[in-house]
Amino acid sequence: MIQIYTGNGKGKTTAALGLGLRAVGANKKVLLVQFLKDGKSSEIKAIKKIKNFDVRIFGRKGFISKNKILKKDFNLVTQGFNFVQKTIQSKEYDLIILDEINVINYFGLIKTKDILELMKKIPSKMELILTGRNASKKVIQAADLVTEMKQIKHYYKKGIKARKGIEF
Amino acid sequence: MIQIYTGNGKGKTTAALGLGLRAVGANKKVLLVQFLKDGKSSEIKAIKKIKNFDVRIFGRKGFISKNKILKKDFNLVTQGFNFVQKTIQSKEYDLIILDEINVINYFGLIKTKDILELMKKIPSKMELILTGRNASKKVIQAADLVTEMKQIKHYYKKGIKARKGIEF
Repeated sequence: MIQIYTGNGKGKTTAALGLGLRAVGANKKVLLVQFLKDGKSSEIKAIKKIKNFDVRIFGRKGFISKNKILKKDFNLVTQGFNFVQKTIQSKEYDLIILDEINVINYFGLIKTKDILELMKKIPSKMELILTGRNASKKVIQAADLVTEMKQIKHYYKKGIKARKGIEF
Repeated sequence: MIQIYTGNGKGKTTAALGLGLRAVGANKKVLLVQFLKDGKSSEIKAIKKIKNFDVRIFGRKGFISKNKILKKDFNLVTQGFNFVQKTIQSKEYDLIILDEINVINYFGLIKTKDILELMKKIPSKMELILTGRNASKKVIQAADLVTEMKQIKHYYKKGIKARKGIEF
């Protein structure tokens, strides 16, 4: 099955992480592939201690926006996506999380067409989780489950900045 | 801060679990209090192996609906809620998840007034996470962050049943 967690609310990456944790508890083998992020998020430290929960980081330090994309970002995404394609073929994992893949798609770092092709290649017993805001309509159409995390209220509007252990 | 994950989409409990995992990675101490569920969900097995991530279960086996509530359910919820009140006062934890508390409120097993009073007593450095569909309007009003998990698409509509390691 292919699941998407998108929308502007908090809880997309954490929902994928929690799903990974649940899968590990059922003796499944889980892989988290993180795009955009530099691997310094607190969850990575916790996951590295969990058996059968692997992590690969294909992001960099610093803020990346649609108008501020470096050659390095393309290279990281390409490298990451090649790794994902190879790993899916190997069938080594039961559940694979592609964290922030919707965002790198929206940024133009990866083509919708390439994601759709990847989705077609998912073995029937594998679970693929795609996260990030601005999921493409075509990707949503091709998925089996889609949850929109809708922001009803967020404390950043009160001026509260991202906190270690809560937002990253 | 007080965060709520509600709505009819998949990802509420898992978002709270992922947040707990992230918090643990930042050396925070986390407690998951699960209502309604019997502790047989796969995530419990995984969490029990994580240092600084404690679990307490106040649910029972079997399906509970609004029209099918036993005396035992009231007792379990009362016992659980008393435990939560005492634990919050002790300040032992940095992050406390009250999983499915919105549902037990909706079922009438706990009063909105009691939840609101509990929310007022949260120490400023503690993070409280409330999950479950049908969060009460007053509880939403009193929270700092609210995400509605909105179901855009779900595979159970294709006849796919809940799967171990994915839904429980």
